[in-house]
Amino acid sequence: MSLLKQESYQPLTETTAVLLALELNLFDEHVNLTCKEIGDGNLNLVFLIFDQAKRKSIIIKQALPYAKVVGESWPLTVKRAKIEADALTVFGHIASEYVPSVYYTDDCLAVTVMEDLSHLTIARTGFIKGNNYPLISKHLGEYLAKTLFYTSDYALGPAIKKEQVQRFINPELCKITEDLIFTDPYYNAETNDFEQSLQKDVEAIWNDDELKFHVSVLKKSFLTEAEVLLHGDLHTGSVFADESETKVIDPEFAFYGPAGFDIGQVIANLLFQVIVSIPKRDVFLDHIETVWNVFEGKFTQLWETENKDEQAKSKEFLEFVLIKYFEDALGFAGCELIRRTVGLAHVADLDSIKEEDARLKAKRKTLALGKILIKQRKEFNRIASFLSLVKDAL
Amino acid sequence: MSLLKQESYQPLTETTAVLLALELNLFDEHVNLTCKEIGDGNLNLVFLIFDQAKRKSIIIKQALPYAKVVGESWPLTVKRAKIEADALTVFGHIASEYVPSVYYTDDCLAVTVMEDLSHLTIARTGFIKGNNYPLISKHLGEYLAKTLFYTSDYALGPAIKKEQVQRFINPELCKITEDLIFTDPYYNAETNDFEQSLQKDVEAIWNDDELKFHVSVLKKSFLTEAEVLLHGDLHTGSVFADESETKVIDPEFAFYGPAGFDIGQVIANLLFQVIVSIPKRDVFLDHIETVWNVFEGKFTQLWETENKDEQAKSKEFLEFVLIKYFEDALGFAGCELIRRTVGLAHVADLDSIKEEDARLKAKRKTLALGKILIKQRKEFNRIASFLSLVKDAL
Repeated sequence: MSLLKQESYQPLTETTAVLLALELNLFDEHVNLTCKEIGDGNLNLVFLIFDQAKRKSIIIKQALPYAKVVGESWPLTVKRAKIEADALTVFGHIASEYVPSVYYTDDCLAVTVMEDLSHLTIARTGFIKGNNYPLISKHLGEYLAKTLFYTSDYALGPAIKKEQVQRFINPELCKITEDLIFTDPYYNAETNDFEQSLQKDVEAIWNDDELKFHVSVLKKSFLTEAEVLLHGDLHTGSVFADESETKVIDPEFAFYGPAGFDIGQVIANLLFQVIVSIPKRDVFLDHIETVWNVFEGKFTQLWETENKDEQAKSKEFLEFVLIKYFEDALGFAGCELIRRTVGLAHVADLDSIKEEDARLKAKRKTLALGKILIKQRKEFNRIASFLSLVKDAL
Repeated sequence: MSLLKQESYQPLTETTAVLLALELNLFDEHVNLTCKEIGDGNLNLVFLIFDQAKRKSIIIKQALPYAKVVGESWPLTVKRAKIEADALTVFGHIASEYVPSVYYTDDCLAVTVMEDLSHLTIARTGFIKGNNYPLISKHLGEYLAKTLFYTSDYALGPAIKKEQVQRFINPELCKITEDLIFTDPYYNAETNDFEQSLQKDVEAIWNDDELKFHVSVLKKSFLTEAEVLLHGDLHTGSVFADESETKVIDPEFAFYGPAGFDIGQVIANLLFQVIVSIPKRDVFLDHIETVWNVFEGKFTQLWETENKDEQAKSKEFLEFVLIKYFEDALGFAGCELIRRTVGLAHVADLDSIKEEDARLKAKRKTLALGKILIKQRKEFNRIASFLSLVKDAL
């Protein structure tokens, strides 16, 4: 029985994953293939299939009909595999150097067959181990500039952009963000997860009406502003890297939203390293500066040369757009800092600090910086003034 | 052959329109029906079918596969009939008192069968004749409050709202607005249509970089901010009225956009009467004040009692939303004033002034007021200060 064009969903096994790879002619016929399921089992099955003789390998990723996040199980349809495959295709056309190649997709099986990136390391893991990846910030800046320009009204024209908005409506995955980033950390929600010693700090957040006002404004932007096709979950766990290469994976949260959201996630997840790694603080501050400056430079160049809206090409309007993106990015970064401390999904940058006092200190700094970014996001409109604030705050 | 469940589009005739009405059992079997095509032929066929004996009548509206606007013909699919029928249904559930009843729709024939409103007058026509309609502004304020609240994230919840965004993606009709309101009037576009004597005034607009910057900001809001389901074309030609009743028709431009757009269209189209009708100026200024105050009051009540987002219920956030809607409304109103003077589609309020000097004077006032509203929309945040500006400007 062929695995191509299945009419109902079934989870693959290591055996059927190999059969699928062979049916797709991705390997020579009589080759000896090995298959290993390497997923974390939370959202997806991930099969690594390789031909040791020819040193050729691929990944088959299959969505599971639920999500497990820290023990909780959420029902989730496998439609997200289509969103992810479609987003990989769109981003692959725009910024192929930073996106894994896709060889085959099947919406019914919820399968994406793609380039194996296991020669690279997940950036968060590498950072925690002390790696640096000198080019990662330049690459992420370029990735952001290209994806956030080429999916906008100004590059696609309003009609095609609207079709893309329709195609990438993603209620299930957006709900996870809406709840876990913009809602639950700001009241005594069951999903929250924080150390007992932080109780007072967290209660101060729940009682901070000014903060909650700003979070509602940012949440409204997330809910309503269909500016660009976002990756939607662009933390350092969604980035593979080494010294020379950077690849952005896992865009299953993709949808049309505010451009600053992706930029803010990148900034926040680099800030975790600024907070926890005193010896490497300046390296990561430089990374943040580079992400923004490369983004701004490349975005400006694309805006000026490939903008389909003549009237929108003006210097003043570009400046307006860049300042908006910057302010939004800082606000969303602040939300990410707080939710990774108070909310359901944590980051290893903070949680892997073994010594309790140091860990609590880092988390308190994270909360304090998060609050500043959210409330004062409109007060710095240049990257330098933002970075000097970060230095002062830490 | 039945007209129900047709598989291909065909334009109705007066004969087949009657047959359709009979098939739908909207009249008694042996009744003597009369049918008249009463559309203006620009976008739709409109059949009025009536049973004189029982004084019962209905409207069958059918979309044509093109649009004629002042002689120009645009190709346009009949999909807009589905958008219109769906929007009438949504708005009918939310504000039935202000929306015609729908009896039947057929997406393939692009037909909507609905309540006949010919006992009412198109508000613009009535205003020009000197009618007042004392309740129209209260009714429109309530209509706006209900439709702009009940279609938002805060009433529907984000998941259902996203489904509605997807359903109401409307590229063709949005393009008409994007071009005719936000683009063409600001450069020497072929579609523009203005009197030779206004050449200098219009050139001043084309050379006003500050104005064009603000229009790009407002256009960006129209392109990206999916706040609520808009009517999308809420001028006084889309409103039927008499002394006691108000009905909003023709929502074929419906899509998810910025709430201020509908409010702004209403304000601008009442402003035309403020500009042209010196004896009734205060009546129409009062109408504008009432529209906003009734909208604000009712919207606030709905926000506080039916808001699904606990965090968003705060006074501060509601105030933020109302100020945003107000500022956006003034900006969009300014765009409407300018495009009805410079652009392709004019309004009879201005064009029906026979005496040339008076007409040019009115149009120049319209342009001046439009520019002020666009540039200074953030400077008044209360309706009273806006209205006193209007009085001064005129």
